[in-house]
Amino acid sequence: MSTLFLRKQDVLKLLDMKETIAAMEATFHDLAEGRAHMPPKIYLTVNKGDFRAMPAYIPGAAGLKWVNVHPDNLKKGLPTVMATLIYSDPETGYPLAMMDATDITAFRTGAVAAMASKYLAKKNPRSLGLIGAGRQAQAQLLAHAELLDLKLIKVYDLFPETAREFAKRFPKYPVEVRSPEDTVNVDILCTLTPSCEPIVRKEWVKPGTHINAVGADAPGKEELEPAVLNGARVVVDDMEQAVHSGEVNVPISKGLYDPKNIYARLADVVAGRKAGRASESEITIFVSTGLAVEDIALAKILYEKAMKSGGYTTLEFV
Amino acid sequence: MSTLFLRKQDVLKLLDMKETIAAMEATFHDLAEGRAHMPPKIYLTVNKGDFRAMPAYIPGAAGLKWVNVHPDNLKKGLPTVMATLIYSDPETGYPLAMMDATDITAFRTGAVAAMASKYLAKKNPRSLGLIGAGRQAQAQLLAHAELLDLKLIKVYDLFPETAREFAKRFPKYPVEVRSPEDTVNVDILCTLTPSCEPIVRKEWVKPGTHINAVGADAPGKEELEPAVLNGARVVVDDMEQAVHSGEVNVPISKGLYDPKNIYARLADVVAGRKAGRASESEITIFVSTGLAVEDIALAKILYEKAMKSGGYTTLEFV
Repeated sequence: MSTLFLRKQDVLKLLDMKETIAAMEATFHDLAEGRAHMPPKIYLTVNKGDFRAMPAYIPGAAGLKWVNVHPDNLKKGLPTVMATLIYSDPETGYPLAMMDATDITAFRTGAVAAMASKYLAKKNPRSLGLIGAGRQAQAQLLAHAELLDLKLIKVYDLFPETAREFAKRFPKYPVEVRSPEDTVNVDILCTLTPSCEPIVRKEWVKPGTHINAVGADAPGKEELEPAVLNGARVVVDDMEQAVHSGEVNVPISKGLYDPKNIYARLADVVAGRKAGRASESEITIFVSTGLAVEDIALAKILYEKAMKSGGYTTLEFV
Repeated sequence: MSTLFLRKQDVLKLLDMKETIAAMEATFHDLAEGRAHMPPKIYLTVNKGDFRAMPAYIPGAAGLKWVNVHPDNLKKGLPTVMATLIYSDPETGYPLAMMDATDITAFRTGAVAAMASKYLAKKNPRSLGLIGAGRQAQAQLLAHAELLDLKLIKVYDLFPETAREFAKRFPKYPVEVRSPEDTVNVDILCTLTPSCEPIVRKEWVKPGTHINAVGADAPGKEELEPAVLNGARVVVDDMEQAVHSGEVNVPISKGLYDPKNIYARLADVVAGRKAGRASESEITIFVSTGLAVEDIALAKILYEKAMKSGGYTTLEFV
């Protein structure tokens, strides 16, 4: 037996947003029905950052993502976050593949948020706002464009040049650089920054907006004024992770938001166990922290595609 | 930058027991002084077995071992346990190497037990007993032979043929196949089976014996009569893991052993913070469950040797 190795360039060649969204939809059904499961991720803290171990099982696949966050890396010309994934046969434990998972993380995060928009946004959304124009903004654009007929995509970044370059990168889409306040004035808003203080003000958010709060992924991070959460229908990917490190973590720790007000898990909405939005004027918020089952579900697709097409590196590894 | 890949055959070529023992000694000092650390391992349970994620940091290195236990694998001609390891730069999170860790696990387990024998056995031990003649027995023999001048090595296995083959495999050593009772009559005893009921009886264990209890690595497993533990000086590698899955787990769960009687962590004995045995007639027991810091410490040696010698597979991976 041998192990398949997929480098970053291999993964990028194999990734497809349409397939990713379909896989996430299936995985959230599996999660809701108890067919997929994962223990809470564990953290290894080191001087310059941390590592997270994220194991998961889905029907037909198991594995683990190992991902770091090292904020000082940018100075060294390295990505802040790099992820690798071991893809295992759940029947035997055999390591079927090892793959770069940095772009898997980006793709599945975009796909899950777009799926959240599908289930939680008001009918026929036509405008998308992106706060933050980094790597994740690209995934959000591609994922939302796959599912929706977007007439206008507004983008804001703390660094105007980053926002302009983002717009140039997607000439086929109606992307326009706007102010923060104007960017928030859309049907679907995605917040995608590593901010530790609120960017989105309550008075900017119009009735009926759906927000994917994606940037906050660690204690201390937040992008929305706590007042935006209060009165909104808040859906999370995972209850424990959301409270620990998602958009709600700072307001909860300050006593400004009661975790009892969290409405549901996204999986339960996707599986039809819980209704979505109550009215066209309600504000809905999806708190994204990222689930290990998402990574393994996408890894399964890449593994199967690579094995079918052939031509990738394999080694007699274990 | 690129990532180094060490296959099973590469790892076997690079492994050296003398270096392994030295690395374990340094790592247990680091552990005692708080320079090395690890969160508790996490389990992912699947239908046919389980996976464990074991992250750790030691000075200059970080990483994670991903290891499965699938008891039915033997029927399929596959090992029950297979391990892979991601070796990361703690300064940047970069995945410097990925390696097969099945033999790393075997070597470091043998080395740590031999180190425990060095610190806990009576003076000038001359005889070694091995209960169980599988893969781990080989590592125990090599590790103990590295540190001690052994005049007699007794071996027992439930399957006599396995014990005879083991003896044949080591013609340079004074290995003799014996009964369980006779095998226990030694200066240093290693129990290395997956047994779920005691094999070693209290009345067989002579005063002054040191026992490395290695086989029990999951709830429900035990190799020693609980009476052997009571009255002995019990040292563990990790308090939480030992109580959960080490040799003491079954007696504790049955109320036959009080975890308060555990004397010390091996790291504290190695670092001189706690004394070793109190007399030549005392029975000492080291409860081994296996630590992630041990895996990362040995991976560091293999990585550095492989990079120095060159000639191994590297890929532009992340």
